[in-house]
Amino acid sequence: MEQYQPPDRTSWLTHDGSDTDVVVTSRVRLARNVAGIPFVSRCVPTDLRGVMELAEQSLLRESIAPGMTWVPLHQLSQLDRQVLVERHLISGQHAKGELPRAVAISNPDESLSVMVNEEDHLRIQIIRPGLALQDAFKRIDAVDDDIESRIDYAYHPQFGYLTACPTNVGTGIRLSVMLHLPGLKLANEIEKVRRAAQAMSLAVRGIYGEGSEASGDMYQISNQTTLGKSEHDLLDQFENQIIPQVIEYERVARRSLLEKRRVFLEDHVYRALGVLRNARLLKADEALALISHVRLGVALGLIEDVPVRTLNELILVSQPGHLQRTIGREMDQAERRIQRASLVRERLAPARPNGA
Amino acid sequence: MEQYQPPDRTSWLTHDGSDTDVVVTSRVRLARNVAGIPFVSRCVPTDLRGVMELAEQSLLRESIAPGMTWVPLHQLSQLDRQVLVERHLISGQHAKGELPRAVAISNPDESLSVMVNEEDHLRIQIIRPGLALQDAFKRIDAVDDDIESRIDYAYHPQFGYLTACPTNVGTGIRLSVMLHLPGLKLANEIEKVRRAAQAMSLAVRGIYGEGSEASGDMYQISNQTTLGKSEHDLLDQFENQIIPQVIEYERVARRSLLEKRRVFLEDHVYRALGVLRNARLLKADEALALISHVRLGVALGLIEDVPVRTLNELILVSQPGHLQRTIGREMDQAERRIQRASLVRERLAPARPNGA
Repeated sequence: MEQYQPPDRTSWLTHDGSDTDVVVTSRVRLARNVAGIPFVSRCVPTDLRGVMELAEQSLLRESIAPGMTWVPLHQLSQLDRQVLVERHLISGQHAKGELPRAVAISNPDESLSVMVNEEDHLRIQIIRPGLALQDAFKRIDAVDDDIESRIDYAYHPQFGYLTACPTNVGTGIRLSVMLHLPGLKLANEIEKVRRAAQAMSLAVRGIYGEGSEASGDMYQISNQTTLGKSEHDLLDQFENQIIPQVIEYERVARRSLLEKRRVFLEDHVYRALGVLRNARLLKADEALALISHVRLGVALGLIEDVPVRTLNELILVSQPGHLQRTIGREMDQAERRIQRASLVRERLAPARPNGA
Repeated sequence: MEQYQPPDRTSWLTHDGSDTDVVVTSRVRLARNVAGIPFVSRCVPTDLRGVMELAEQSLLRESIAPGMTWVPLHQLSQLDRQVLVERHLISGQHAKGELPRAVAISNPDESLSVMVNEEDHLRIQIIRPGLALQDAFKRIDAVDDDIESRIDYAYHPQFGYLTACPTNVGTGIRLSVMLHLPGLKLANEIEKVRRAAQAMSLAVRGIYGEGSEASGDMYQISNQTTLGKSEHDLLDQFENQIIPQVIEYERVARRSLLEKRRVFLEDHVYRALGVLRNARLLKADEALALISHVRLGVALGLIEDVPVRTLNELILVSQPGHLQRTIGREMDQAERRIQRASLVRERLAPARPNGA
């Protein structure tokens, strides 16, 4: 059975980017289909294999990205698939099922990934740390052109790119920004974000997309429809209007907490650090919530000895799939709670004076 | 205004005693009244002053205890009275009111205290760390004889010592053992203790006597009536039957948790330590509850770098009166929470390697 070996330096974990106090990642995704082959839901296995061959040939090229890795999902263990979901490289839906499907990943930065035979034949994604939608769009546009020079896309002169789901028809683009909003959460003002997003027909979801809860005060804002809007209007709306507004809401909430309820805030973030450094049992959700509070403390300069990068890594490593891969074996939920706590304690251990 | 300066080395905080893993303190109290003077509730001020004079002369003697200190309560600030209540040297009732009343305290060990003009003219108390009722009784019996050689007690040949409340008539004795029962609490078996106590007509109360909740998993077991029972029967019942049985219940519960739910237990005690070492706001009740969990961890050898003495001191210093005395000024509740957390952090700070 194949394995996907996640690299150490995934680009969005590095935390080098714009507005990373609030914005964790920016993602741009394009939905594309191969002309002359039915949409995935209507494909027979021969069609799916045809798409796989075409994609493998077109994607594993230096001109797309150096180090592109081809991962045939249907040959992967459930655990490895889960790891890819947790890394935001494939969707939960793409992880399921045994029909021919794959993901091509740029290794080692994982910034580019292309799901093959998910809902559409190709779903191209660029992920970047911080607020970087324009940058991500430029990159994905180049990748898209490169692929299009080899694959004939299903395209309609009036509607644009044709996709399996009508909400993607047109540009086939989805912009998605993952925001860390603990200040608005603590101030009970998350509703403000939902209203602002709703007014612009945007979706607000949890850390793992549709149907997931907003664990760890992480919220994804993304567009719901594409038809009739140019990529540039959408990018402008996101990067220059909605996201800066939410960032400002969050920063105002944090500043206000810092000015008016400083001790409450310190108590909140230090208790979280104290529990993470001492717990012997940690559920995934609790870990996320506590890491979120510590992340807030670090962003506000209240906690100084914990790098944000460590916290971003812990968010990932706390997930069931990553935890099992890190420990090196499959574990039931009870054992995972023990190992999660142990791993978190180890990574957050306070630095000893004199380097001891 | 007078002040009572609590000594550094109160005997029951030292934690040197028998069964101190479960028993915090043993107390014996005698209720006595002066013959020929009405009970306190029917006294006129002249009577009260008469009792005060008589008591001061009789109690401040080397033969009673070295370093006896006379504290006229009606001249004390509310804060100082509260400190005495928290140290178990006077009752909450005795702290109230402006009529002539006092407490005589053996300084610096505070093991002997005599309340003057509480419900009875004299309420003599011996407090000892651990299970030491026989020992405490021997000591209080000698003190009682010494006082009786100077004061004519109200005594009835048939009923025994006469007291204001009929439940104390006879020997006037009350035995009281403060138990730390976190194991039974965690195992949901406190009801066992209540049933055992009820079967022997004993009262089970919280850390600060009648009406107080069992904060910090501390429970006081004491006799409710005295008439018709000799001191020796009562002592035997307490020290050789009921208390050893409760101690055994608690130890079995702890062992069982340690064997069957070790990680749960470790999680429980270490989280408590983590919160105490990191919180910036602590309510008195929460502090007690967390200290209780750490105390359990220390008793079971799970936590090694915290002395029980420090925890016993923190239980006391977390109380509102002591906290204000320690910080050196009166504070409202909000400020107390900040200072309590700060003081707890300081006292529980982990030892630095290399003595730094």
